[in-house]
Amino acid sequence: MALHEPDRPERPWRIRLHEIIFEADTPAGKAFDIVLIGSILLSVATVMLESIRSVRIHYGQVLNGVEWFFTGLFTIEYLLRLVSVRRPLRYARSFFGVVDILALLPTYLSLIIPGTQYLFTIRILRLLRVFRVLKLSEYLSEATILTSALRASQRKISVFILTVLTLVIILGSLMYIIEGEENGFDSIPTSIYWAIVTLTTVGYGDLSPQTPAGKVLASLVMVMGYGIIAVPTGIVTVEISQAARKLNKVSSQACPSCGLEGHDADAVFCKYCGAQL
Amino acid sequence: MALHEPDRPERPWRIRLHEIIFEADTPAGKAFDIVLIGSILLSVATVMLESIRSVRIHYGQVLNGVEWFFTGLFTIEYLLRLVSVRRPLRYARSFFGVVDILALLPTYLSLIIPGTQYLFTIRILRLLRVFRVLKLSEYLSEATILTSALRASQRKISVFILTVLTLVIILGSLMYIIEGEENGFDSIPTSIYWAIVTLTTVGYGDLSPQTPAGKVLASLVMVMGYGIIAVPTGIVTVEISQAARKLNKVSSQACPSCGLEGHDADAVFCKYCGAQL
Amino acid sequence: MALHEPDRPERPWRIRLHEIIFEADTPAGKAFDIVLIGSILLSVATVMLESIRSVRIHYGQVLNGVEWFFTGLFTIEYLLRLVSVRRPLRYARSFFGVVDILALLPTYLSLIIPGTQYLFTIRILRLLRVFRVLKLSEYLSEATILTSALRASQRKISVFILTVLTLVIILGSLMYIIEGEENGFDSIPTSIYWAIVTLTTVGYGDLSPQTPAGKVLASLVMVMGYGIIAVPTGIVTVEISQAARKLNKVSSQACPSCGLEGHDADAVFCKYCGAQL
Amino acid sequence: MALHEPDRPERPWRIRLHEIIFEADTPAGKAFDIVLIGSILLSVATVMLESIRSVRIHYGQVLNGVEWFFTGLFTIEYLLRLVSVRRPLRYARSFFGVVDILALLPTYLSLIIPGTQYLFTIRILRLLRVFRVLKLSEYLSEATILTSALRASQRKISVFILTVLTLVIILGSLMYIIEGEENGFDSIPTSIYWAIVTLTTVGYGDLSPQTPAGKVLASLVMVMGYGIIAVPTGIVTVEISQAARKLNKVSSQACPSCGLEGHDADAVFCKYCGAQL
Repeated sequence: MALHEPDRPERPWRIRLHEIIFEADTPAGKAFDIVLIGSILLSVATVMLESIRSVRIHYGQVLNGVEWFFTGLFTIEYLLRLVSVRRPLRYARSFFGVVDILALLPTYLSLIIPGTQYLFTIRILRLLRVFRVLKLSEYLSEATILTSALRASQRKISVFILTVLTLVIILGSLMYIIEGEENGFDSIPTSIYWAIVTLTTVGYGDLSPQTPAGKVLASLVMVMGYGIIAVPTGIVTVEISQAARKLNKVSSQACPSCGLEGHDADAVFCKYCGAQL
Repeated sequence: MALHEPDRPERPWRIRLHEIIFEADTPAGKAFDIVLIGSILLSVATVMLESIRSVRIHYGQVLNGVEWFFTGLFTIEYLLRLVSVRRPLRYARSFFGVVDILALLPTYLSLIIPGTQYLFTIRILRLLRVFRVLKLSEYLSEATILTSALRASQRKISVFILTVLTLVIILGSLMYIIEGEENGFDSIPTSIYWAIVTLTTVGYGDLSPQTPAGKVLASLVMVMGYGIIAVPTGIVTVEISQAARKLNKVSSQACPSCGLEGHDADAVFCKYCGAQL
Repeated sequence: MALHEPDRPERPWRIRLHEIIFEADTPAGKAFDIVLIGSILLSVATVMLESIRSVRIHYGQVLNGVEWFFTGLFTIEYLLRLVSVRRPLRYARSFFGVVDILALLPTYLSLIIPGTQYLFTIRILRLLRVFRVLKLSEYLSEATILTSALRASQRKISVFILTVLTLVIILGSLMYIIEGEENGFDSIPTSIYWAIVTLTTVGYGDLSPQTPAGKVLASLVMVMGYGIIAVPTGIVTVEISQAARKLNKVSSQACPSCGLEGHDADAVFCKYCGAQL
Repeated sequence: MALHEPDRPERPWRIRLHEIIFEADTPAGKAFDIVLIGSILLSVATVMLESIRSVRIHYGQVLNGVEWFFTGLFTIEYLLRLVSVRRPLRYARSFFGVVDILALLPTYLSLIIPGTQYLFTIRILRLLRVFRVLKLSEYLSEATILTSALRASQRKISVFILTVLTLVIILGSLMYIIEGEENGFDSIPTSIYWAIVTLTTVGYGDLSPQTPAGKVLASLVMVMGYGIIAVPTGIVTVEISQAARKLNKVSSQACPSCGLEGHDADAVFCKYCGAQL
């Protein structure tokens, strides 16, 4: 349905509003973004403070007021966004549209349902809205390199994670047999949790091997983890290197003859049709 | 003996069965693979759940039934595999043939020997069977890059691990002298275990230096570990980079006209002189 | 004001003094640097020793004497520096000028204000003065590569840190909901602290998940941390690689005869056509 | 003196003995190496076992016998080495000569001085003798790449370690001020130890911040450690990459005209004199 939502007629005030809210190349647009980021960060800080028991007891009232202030602000902003886009329904169902609603709902719901802590915590998702502003910024191309590097390495990383998961399940089961319930390894899932904690070199120490055989296996797992951590690093490094090279080294020149792009910076002739560049 | 096992005569139904069970390019073959992966994962989940004491007490009967269902299924699958290959004996002794048997035996053995927990845990090896299906999949080339990178770096990593082991033994012995039995470092093997836990940055904290001299040595070990972790990462990164380059980047073709190399794999014309490659 | 501070007239003794104190290419300058580094390290060691209660009780008097000796020495040095530069005010407000003062003040202030431990600890900043000497040394170009690599990757790392912070806040909040106050996750900030401890693979173990759901989430965080640690490493590696290449490897010179590039910096003749470069 | 030690006259039996003991390209030489490595590993295992109290109590006598057996063996080997080289004094003072003596002395000394545990632990240095055999092996070129990469990156790593040390001292002092003695941070050295444990992501958990301000600083240190660990990895990766490239890519061809080496594999003309290769 949304795909067939008709475009609303273009109005000058709507274009102007859209420029302020969704773009950042006018002074008004920039100011809007700065105020927005500030409000988001402050409201997230409020949610965090509220979760601390002693703060909640002493400043509960104040924080509640601040919360309603920001909720009001974000509600107005949300309505303005709906008004300023050409296809409001489509916006409402986009990723950021959903995040916008999720950031508002818990406060309103607390009027109906006596607000539980859990419901309130959802408001922390407001933080995601910061990325909306970032999208416009100069950091975009950097983010693009990172994202495209991660996307390119996605398959290799899938293979890697599958291998690690198998390893972790088998090592965890082995440890369950070796150490057993009396040393805290009381089920295979618990032992797998231990194997993950160890292989990733986190090492909480809430579970650690007690028997000599267990310590030998644990040592093997750690040395393995040493080597294994090298794999994703290698994958990502190579992909970032290629993504960066592509960005820097491939010239943006299009062949005057066939129009294709992607030529190396040192190319003199088009590699597709042989015409001089 | 198996090497001289004669080929069984080719029968149309055997070819068809082989296609379904061992390959994945027909709809039936794909469906078989999906059902198989699902069964494997569910049966592994059953083994895990059974290891949790409270689950075992309440749902022991149900899990037992589920277990027998999957054992039956895998038994039929195993027999079909034996029937569909031309040299069943050879298959039975291949890596996956042995894994298949190991995944079945414990359940049957539990009828004879009153099943110990340990015997049952072997069934977790069923998980390895997932890789059989993966072998056919599109992830193969990615896995190949990783495997060949690891194989290429095997020797460097051997030298590295030998050095680390020597380091760990000497550092552990030193720590045994410094801290001594009264601080938990009650033997050289225990101290070596500590050195591995520290050098790999796992850091459980079940053993940690108490004396000032011990803390100084531990600090040295940690800073060392910092530098040392860089080595396998460097090795693997360089190998992955070379493996990836070999696979997909620069063709080794030289221009027939000017003799220069370094052309992209998709180049049709020389980028230096414009001649057709 | 300082920007308009007039240059003092150049005097031979001032030039000579400047050479000794600020430079390292004369024998006197080198000797001065070595004595200075020695004094700095010894005085920092004094500050450290003084912080150990048992040492303070037994050797407090001695350490106090040593402290005044070094303070005297550094005061003389500071005055000499002021005298030897052409614009003393400007020097006093430079980074190292401020560090010099911060290294002296606490001892003098302790005569007026009965010296608290905290005030004394500021003297540890003396350590920064070591870098002043390093500035002159042969390690400069190495430091330049590292610094320029870090500067070049600054933006990518900002994007990365922003992403990690968001992740850590959302994961921490989730953990706060899952584990709750009864398991030590008593506020969102505490839970965020846990998420950072886990994601960076530090893993103190002062807080660790107790519920099954918490352990599953923690496992996810750890595997994530595994992948995430690869990103800054990849970024920095690529940048160091580029910085190193720029500094010392391939000259950007093109052959005047055949126009090809990629010659080593020490090449005199084109490696492709043999023409003089 | 040793430098002027005259060469002993060459005798056929000495050459033969030298071949067996110091080289590995004859069957006898290989057999000698294998027996030697085996003996070293077994005697190191004996030292380790002896350090375990319960083993020492029950099998002390047996281990003592084994120890004397290996000491005898290594003594004979040492004498043979001295006999087979042309300049025995020079050998005795080389690195491996000293290690050989250190591996023997403690056992003999235990006859005179009633053997302390500490003296005995020195025997673990026997392990270093394994590297003597390795020197001859096929792993040499791999070890060369790693060693030369580490040597090339030595300066960068020195700058890096100096920076990390400064950071750790300043962060530790800050933590000492923030947390204070009541939370276990009872002196600056202890706090520096904590900072190292945290920055290297080891995270024992024997010391962890208790105050909110301390947790914030600790979080900063951890995120910093995240970025910092990337630096040595980057340095080493780039160096390994260059060392590997140099080994693979630089042809071993010498210019027929000027005799210089170090040409790229794709070079057609000498880059120094322009002559055709």
